[in-house]
Amino acid sequence: MTMLYGGIEAGGTKFLCAVGTGPDDLRAEARIPTTTPDETIGQAIAFFQEHAESLAAIGIGSFGPLDPNPASSTYGHITTTPKPGWANTDLAGQIGRALDIPVRLDTDVNVAALGEHRWGAAQGLDTFIYLTVGTGIGGGGMVNGRLMHGLVHPEMGHVRIPHDPRSDPYPGSCPYHDDCLEGLASAPAIEKRWGHPPEALPADHPAWALEARYLALGVVNFICTLSPQRVIIGGGVMKRSGLIALVRQNVQQLLNDYVQAPAIREGIDNYITLPNLGQRAGLLGAIALAQQSIE
Amino acid sequence: MTMLYGGIEAGGTKFLCAVGTGPDDLRAEARIPTTTPDETIGQAIAFFQEHAESLAAIGIGSFGPLDPNPASSTYGHITTTPKPGWANTDLAGQIGRALDIPVRLDTDVNVAALGEHRWGAAQGLDTFIYLTVGTGIGGGGMVNGRLMHGLVHPEMGHVRIPHDPRSDPYPGSCPYHDDCLEGLASAPAIEKRWGHPPEALPADHPAWALEARYLALGVVNFICTLSPQRVIIGGGVMKRSGLIALVRQNVQQLLNDYVQAPAIREGIDNYITLPNLGQRAGLLGAIALAQQSIE
Repeated sequence: MTMLYGGIEAGGTKFLCAVGTGPDDLRAEARIPTTTPDETIGQAIAFFQEHAESLAAIGIGSFGPLDPNPASSTYGHITTTPKPGWANTDLAGQIGRALDIPVRLDTDVNVAALGEHRWGAAQGLDTFIYLTVGTGIGGGGMVNGRLMHGLVHPEMGHVRIPHDPRSDPYPGSCPYHDDCLEGLASAPAIEKRWGHPPEALPADHPAWALEARYLALGVVNFICTLSPQRVIIGGGVMKRSGLIALVRQNVQQLLNDYVQAPAIREGIDNYITLPNLGQRAGLLGAIALAQQSIE
Repeated sequence: MTMLYGGIEAGGTKFLCAVGTGPDDLRAEARIPTTTPDETIGQAIAFFQEHAESLAAIGIGSFGPLDPNPASSTYGHITTTPKPGWANTDLAGQIGRALDIPVRLDTDVNVAALGEHRWGAAQGLDTFIYLTVGTGIGGGGMVNGRLMHGLVHPEMGHVRIPHDPRSDPYPGSCPYHDDCLEGLASAPAIEKRWGHPPEALPADHPAWALEARYLALGVVNFICTLSPQRVIIGGGVMKRSGLIALVRQNVQQLLNDYVQAPAIREGIDNYITLPNLGQRAGLLGAIALAQQSIE
């Protein structure tokens, strides 16, 4: 019998669950609304129990903040999330105990990065970042061949970038930092600034030039800090046709030929890319995380 | 006979060379002015030839940009530096061929980080950054237990940070990016903004509050991007008494309790520190790099 793996993309509005071995072999999937921890985690456990016989491990990519350090006493917990009822939830532990199999947990962005590394746009790289631009802005990735953790985990959406209130008087939407990258360029920031959600803004709206500029300022800072071999940008806002090309242009203009790498100077279309796995990066990455825990 | 290691801190104004095994065992040292590559490298080779019998390897921490990728055909070269005569200099190769021993080369900041990891403020950590604030601003460090490289190497001094021209009309000194971190907060930027070099500015001069703010904006961005376990800040500008404390205050205020790690919330004095090895971090790190190449 083929060994199967479970994956969970644990988001603030839904848990996507799957059982399989990769992009071309998903045997079952479920979509569970995120309500209370008991209800949601209970439904996820019930889904995996149907496949318990062949299941070797489960991987979870979760919203956070969370504790991704296997050596910590709160490993696998969602920690300080403002989401009602979910703070201090032992997500990985509850599922592991119920199914009696190994469960690994990491941030949603790190897990999506792992998916892209296994099957998508980051294959063969050892240092790259994966950004997601949607309700929030998050970032993760690998450095030196391993997922980024450090003290806790990156919070790339909260970098500070130049913001000129004369040309953009919107003060920013972040409750902690006002006009950090997430506060200026997430979907809610776009909606609050312009009065319409991103998907309702026409292609020629000035929102898009500003959005590309802010995202490029963030990307340039990540390039200068980490020197990634590739920058993958996903999330709902990036579905806008042409936005990624505008980001590339702004990144090159901002770097101004300072980083003299052919990958950036001549290959920017491959250097800054959308995820190959698209909206499946997170769920497939969770399967990859489960596989990695066994290997 | 004890195996000895050679170290070079290759800077724009001088090459510091040493032979030994660590902080308490440096057998010989030399200070060579940086003039032409032939002259300076020739003098360094002559110095090491006196110890050639017992020398196992040489490590170099160099100004750049440079090629730190051992798999590359230009590994060990200084690449595109604006320093006259030094572009495309095969620094590591020339020394290695002349002495017929292994030579490893990395950025000055990565090598100083390695020194702090072996003998200083970063012992036992696997993810930390080392910044230097002087003629320029540079950054390196380790992620997941290995020095940071990626596509080329980090250029942390060139991150973009908020700059309000109403309160600080100085446009920035970076020839590539004007008001990037280095353009706003390096020693030349301080001198051009205030008309005096940093060491001539009194303790109560407004320069210091502004300097601490800019450095903190950089540090906050590095924390959000990398989640380091510690931030070490060296370089000439940091010799100013009290500046590091001001940087810590600004970092906490800017993070605004978002990163809920005791290391930051309660232990900021240990989290953001001066190098333990002080001005010796680079030279000792070069010895550590040589040792690492043999181990």
